[in-house]
Amino acid sequence: MLTDIEIARSAKMRKIVSIANELDIPEEYYNLHGKYIAKVSHQYLNELDFKKDGKLIMVTAITPTPAGEGKTTTSIGLSMAINKLQKNSIVTLREPSLGPVMGIKGGAAGGGYAQVLPMEDINLHFTGDIHAVTTAHNLISAIVDTYIKYDKLNIDSTRVLWPRAMDMNDRSLRDIVVGLGGKNNGYPREDSFVITTASEIMAILCLSKDLEDLKERLSRIVVARNKEGDPITVKDLEISGALAVLLKDAINPNLVQTIENTPAFVHGGPFANIAHGTNAITSTKLALKLSDYVVTESGFGSDLGAEKFYDFVCPTFGLHPSATVLVATIRALKYHGGQSKSALSIPDLDSLKKGLPNLQVHIENLKKFNLPVIVAINKFETDSQEEIKLVLDFVKDLGVECSVNESYEKGSEGAVDLAEKVIKSCEKDSELKTIYNFEDELEIKIDKLVKNIYRAGRVEYTSEAIQSMKFLKKYGYDKLPIIMAKTQYSISDDPHKLGFPKDYTFTIRDFELSAGAGFIVGLAGDMLRMPGLSKVPNAVNIDIDKNGNIIGLY
Amino acid sequence: MLTDIEIARSAKMRKIVSIANELDIPEEYYNLHGKYIAKVSHQYLNELDFKKDGKLIMVTAITPTPAGEGKTTTSIGLSMAINKLQKNSIVTLREPSLGPVMGIKGGAAGGGYAQVLPMEDINLHFTGDIHAVTTAHNLISAIVDTYIKYDKLNIDSTRVLWPRAMDMNDRSLRDIVVGLGGKNNGYPREDSFVITTASEIMAILCLSKDLEDLKERLSRIVVARNKEGDPITVKDLEISGALAVLLKDAINPNLVQTIENTPAFVHGGPFANIAHGTNAITSTKLALKLSDYVVTESGFGSDLGAEKFYDFVCPTFGLHPSATVLVATIRALKYHGGQSKSALSIPDLDSLKKGLPNLQVHIENLKKFNLPVIVAINKFETDSQEEIKLVLDFVKDLGVECSVNESYEKGSEGAVDLAEKVIKSCEKDSELKTIYNFEDELEIKIDKLVKNIYRAGRVEYTSEAIQSMKFLKKYGYDKLPIIMAKTQYSISDDPHKLGFPKDYTFTIRDFELSAGAGFIVGLAGDMLRMPGLSKVPNAVNIDIDKNGNIIGLY
Repeated sequence: MLTDIEIARSAKMRKIVSIANELDIPEEYYNLHGKYIAKVSHQYLNELDFKKDGKLIMVTAITPTPAGEGKTTTSIGLSMAINKLQKNSIVTLREPSLGPVMGIKGGAAGGGYAQVLPMEDINLHFTGDIHAVTTAHNLISAIVDTYIKYDKLNIDSTRVLWPRAMDMNDRSLRDIVVGLGGKNNGYPREDSFVITTASEIMAILCLSKDLEDLKERLSRIVVARNKEGDPITVKDLEISGALAVLLKDAINPNLVQTIENTPAFVHGGPFANIAHGTNAITSTKLALKLSDYVVTESGFGSDLGAEKFYDFVCPTFGLHPSATVLVATIRALKYHGGQSKSALSIPDLDSLKKGLPNLQVHIENLKKFNLPVIVAINKFETDSQEEIKLVLDFVKDLGVECSVNESYEKGSEGAVDLAEKVIKSCEKDSELKTIYNFEDELEIKIDKLVKNIYRAGRVEYTSEAIQSMKFLKKYGYDKLPIIMAKTQYSISDDPHKLGFPKDYTFTIRDFELSAGAGFIVGLAGDMLRMPGLSKVPNAVNIDIDKNGNIIGLY
Repeated sequence: MLTDIEIARSAKMRKIVSIANELDIPEEYYNLHGKYIAKVSHQYLNELDFKKDGKLIMVTAITPTPAGEGKTTTSIGLSMAINKLQKNSIVTLREPSLGPVMGIKGGAAGGGYAQVLPMEDINLHFTGDIHAVTTAHNLISAIVDTYIKYDKLNIDSTRVLWPRAMDMNDRSLRDIVVGLGGKNNGYPREDSFVITTASEIMAILCLSKDLEDLKERLSRIVVARNKEGDPITVKDLEISGALAVLLKDAINPNLVQTIENTPAFVHGGPFANIAHGTNAITSTKLALKLSDYVVTESGFGSDLGAEKFYDFVCPTFGLHPSATVLVATIRALKYHGGQSKSALSIPDLDSLKKGLPNLQVHIENLKKFNLPVIVAINKFETDSQEEIKLVLDFVKDLGVECSVNESYEKGSEGAVDLAEKVIKSCEKDSELKTIYNFEDELEIKIDKLVKNIYRAGRVEYTSEAIQSMKFLKKYGYDKLPIIMAKTQYSISDDPHKLGFPKDYTFTIRDFELSAGAGFIVGLAGDMLRMPGLSKVPNAVNIDIDKNGNIIGLY
């Protein structure tokens, strides 16, 4: 098979103008970024109030493994297949961060014959959204240190809560000291850089309905505490306006196309552990007005992205999702069953059987949200018939629909059965049930999540967590929804607990506040917010010829 | 008078498509960035070999003062006026950096009725060129620290020559320690951030003819020395391809329009002390093919930007400039004559007279390049008739043309006389003479500059400079042209020497190598490469309403 970039390059793209035309987006409501990308004004939503929303389908996955699950590929393939069935569908995805593109992971624009295009641009600077977030983020930092230097706002320089940000995998910036060199350079203090997608501003961008909402959320960010311990916000810094100006274009949905020329929005990319993990809400809302079936994805496994989407995003914006697609692969299930990464291509019913409980717990968890669940087995050519049958039977026994997705190799053709099952499920009139209510006390919210989703027997709070809780309560932040930051490699808080862990102790190590995004982050484990490059980073494989043809991106 | 942003907003812009059409740029050779900005492929130049170049006019200024000289405003006004005289003209400018926009300086898209539009975009993220430079710059840093961690290339971590970069005024990042926190984060070392426009990659971007040239230049960057003292280059890091991929769009000229709908390229922005200080060469070359008169500007006073343009840029690219416009203001001349900043609006022939020697030395210096010099007095409404007459007479006595430029208040109408004089001067068949030759020994080059331009009696080298010279000679870098990094506030190396200093000692403190850009930097003073924010930064004045209208940018 050809590489992703070869397939991408051989695809015939349509001009984005004609795709925008088909969606009836008036010319004054979008700006072109080259011939194949358009930024649609979020204000166009105001013109569409009269329209009914389409159906919302959320794609999630079992617990991620190094074997890869293909959630983005499945989302794209499913949306293309719905279009093939003569229904309108738009897929909405997160945009890739440059750091990992240069690192080991490669891009994030789908794969094979289920990609969004132009993949080179999407995987590189795209429309500059992430750069805008970086700039806004670092403006706050520069202002905080300037105010410390000039002794404004009584900032406690030992309690600056706002790191700096860069869209790069750069481990050397994880722990740094800034402000050295004497009086002209300000006051020395410990600091750190996070990768831009881990910035609260990325979460805010993806949770803002419009410029006013954006400005309001930005103003609420808590950046530091003063010497009395009180929170200092962006409002106190007086720069919410400047930050919103820097983000004025980034809030607008990016319209691109799939490899089969169906519309796609690729927009925003917050983490699914320390943030909510789905694409920008302006894109989802716009897609719901512009199509009958919106396929969206959420980050990591269903215990992270899907939980946050259903418990936090949907209630916040009044979204009514219709179905959940749970992506699993034979390879990943074998890995969960104890097989080593190098042997995943060899048929092995034994490991597969041992790995099925991971699929089971995700199915059980997702059922609690009261929406139809459809399992999509994302097929690899090394999967045997027996292996696939084993999974199909297992899922059927749990009373859940299951389909084999071959869109990586076959495009929409490979996802028609999945699409039919999804469309049928959407016809049921299901209503989302959340695990917790916004009104629940903080500890109650956590308790419900821990027992229902992470499947622990009990919760423990460290003394740091108890201390932080006092701060949250003192300033009234404890009423915010909870976003749990925990490992993606297990449904538990321990990356080594594969499969279906239960009856263990879930530990809340600390809390962080994302007051602008509008949630409390519960830290259940160490979250790495700045990846590193490997010994041989992908950057060394990337090249361009004199005509601008790129190699090494995937 | 209205503010810049009010004037800009009330202007009627033409769609950039129609401007591109008038320039006969085929659609396949440009990409739109919204309705009013296009990126023109640098490869379009290959189609234009058959065309003769237009005349090249370089706009420079007297020694800068806090009073402002209006070089960009004059360049734009002059180009608009040439168009008004029924000749084709394109103005080529540097693009503003976001750091200063948020700091104290405001934007850099001209002013009053001589602006380039859309000023909001140009002053904000524009087409993302600077962000691309930041990313490429920091990829090198991340790779260097990764290779140090994994003990590749035998890099001496105490001799990393490559800082990190950010497009922000952030003094806290001037002196930092990175790599703290233990083994996983690499090895601690001293480091610093420069503002992106000070990155060698910005200079390289502006000096690269095409993607191959770009890749070649990138590969030559010296990033560190190994434990034997030998230079380590980007070629050794094996990432020239990845860097070129990150810069593949940034190399393409940005086409915008002036407030009178004439074409303008705004592209790249290297410093004029540690780098060469003019917009990207692809834009200048393209403008020369597309119009009869190209007006370009160079950074700071003529001792910095103009000298570098004539001695380095023109010979490197075989450019044949036709005339020099030297911008002066009554206010700045009074400041040079000893008047305080607060009193510059009061007529004061005495201070003005005392300041005239600064104008004189710039005129004398510029004459040495053998091109016609035209002085443009950039008029402010507080200038008195007597003051203007004094300057006109003074310039006439030096045998040089002089014109009063009122384009800030009147647009092209205010620069017609200037345009006529410039056009007339271009008719002479002048040939550029440089101060030094590329073949001269390094010390000879410096000696010629110091005596002819900086007007010192002698040069001294510190022991650091002598040491660095040995390194340059050992590895054959001493044959490169010299770019002098010195204060912009005096033609000398001392910011306190106003007016026309002479017979002093010029001190070369050290050398730096910009092997990718292709020059040696002579450091004659401390160059601040990372500005800071002021106590009340401009960011607090910037705001946006719900319809996207911005205030506080200028």
